[in-house]
Amino acid sequence: MSEKFIREVPVRFRDLDPLNHVNHAVYASYLESVRIDYIEKVLDQRLRELSFVIANLELSYRRPIEYGDEPVVALWVTELGETSCTMAYEIRVDGEVAATAETVMVHTDGETGKPAPIDEDVRERIREYEGLEART
Amino acid sequence: MSEKFIREVPVRFRDLDPLNHVNHAVYASYLESVRIDYIEKVLDQRLRELSFVIANLELSYRRPIEYGDEPVVALWVTELGETSCTMAYEIRVDGEVAATAETVMVHTDGETGKPAPIDEDVRERIREYEGLEART
Amino acid sequence: MSEKFIREVPVRFRDLDPLNHVNHAVYASYLESVRIDYIEKVLDQRLRELSFVIANLELSYRRPIEYGDEPVVALWVTELGETSCTMAYEIRVDGEVAATAETVMVHTDGETGKPAPIDEDVRERIREYEGLEART
Amino acid sequence: MSEKFIREVPVRFRDLDPLNHVNHAVYASYLESVRIDYIEKVLDQRLRELSFVIANLELSYRRPIEYGDEPVVALWVTELGETSCTMAYEIRVDGEVAATAETVMVHTDGETGKPAPIDEDVRERIREYEGLEART
Repeated sequence: MSEKFIREVPVRFRDLDPLNHVNHAVYASYLESVRIDYIEKVLDQRLRELSFVIANLELSYRRPIEYGDEPVVALWVTELGETSCTMAYEIRVDGEVAATAETVMVHTDGETGKPAPIDEDVRERIREYEGLEART
Repeated sequence: MSEKFIREVPVRFRDLDPLNHVNHAVYASYLESVRIDYIEKVLDQRLRELSFVIANLELSYRRPIEYGDEPVVALWVTELGETSCTMAYEIRVDGEVAATAETVMVHTDGETGKPAPIDEDVRERIREYEGLEART
Repeated sequence: MSEKFIREVPVRFRDLDPLNHVNHAVYASYLESVRIDYIEKVLDQRLRELSFVIANLELSYRRPIEYGDEPVVALWVTELGETSCTMAYEIRVDGEVAATAETVMVHTDGETGKPAPIDEDVRERIREYEGLEART
Repeated sequence: MSEKFIREVPVRFRDLDPLNHVNHAVYASYLESVRIDYIEKVLDQRLRELSFVIANLELSYRRPIEYGDEPVVALWVTELGETSCTMAYEIRVDGEVAATAETVMVHTDGETGKPAPIDEDVRERIREYEGLEART
């Protein structure tokens, strides 16, 4: 659990809903923004060749995010399976946790769309970045 | 588990992302559409007085939704707590489950924003609609 | 100006903004929904081979759209150029005009991305559907 | 035409559509982000008391915006009427113009929703910021 990957995600007016808060579905787009950045920067995968799809999403909302807040998203990998990768997130405003989240993404074969083993070089990059130990 | 509340949610081009599928965050907006409809129709609560906020969201994605698909969302209440209400969902395309979901929403006091007991008449409407038995 | 192409676009809760109205940017997505439908149904073009891009958008807002409203979008072609196609729109609620709009879309070459003449069979389909006369 | 008001608007993955570009409707949200900022900072109006509504929007698209691009939006007031305010915009990527736009917003009375004269102190702030001369 290294938690080195942290990014700002500026709030837009369009993120707000009639309750005057960032709409709960938009949190998933905040996570996605940062996850895609991780996939590009750490996994060195190009967007057009994106081979990971989201299989599961969990979000716990602790406090509303308002216009003028400056949320940051922290992301780290908690589990690296044969074909899947589990990430944990915290969305923070002024150091306080506004939401926690977890996603499971599955690596798929570009042609069949079926789950496929994550390439060894991608696994190696994740392990190195996260300080995870290889499973034997 | 009555599952009487089912609504269509037409796919818009804007729901799609570069993978040519409905973006995973948009599923949460599909659920919300139907949940708000439930809150208005079954709970008879007016949108401007909306006193429920989402505390938790879980989504499992089973198959992609494409442009031209005609998804329907089924929603039912699985648990009715003192201050919270848990709902389960299925998003279906052509009778097949494209995603399952669960939300926990918390009833809040309009002034303090703190959790507050769900009014007895609202509880009664849910129980009646869902065929749930009152807890003693 | 035949105006035969009319579609419903159901309002979603996520379309609303803090003013409790459909956000003005979302109107552009309503138009797009119906335009894409036109491109598929009337022009018989497949989404994956979409070769039209929006060059210009104009929207005039006459009255707000609220949750519970049932907007319909009417679309018709007003001009068919060598490489471009101009469409006019009305968004109506209960027969009253909520917004009027115009888009210019340009046909592009899939490889270069540069403007390219609209195929004669596509032109023919538009003329026939719209009752436009061929230019000599 | 002072053009002092310039803001970055980071691209999110959710802004993209199947053509792998920022969707054309999202440009309107980029403009809005910056306009709301202007209204808060220059006009000193609080978001909850927002009394301007969009009456007209025009957008011309010159080149696509892609993921990884870092767009900035420049905004300036071109006309200050009795009840309306016209703004011009440029969205730029790497110094090149990706889109130009114009909005007309109308000042409304909070209670009736009807057009109402813009307060003199708001007019004065705009004139001062923009270097516009008062009309006599």
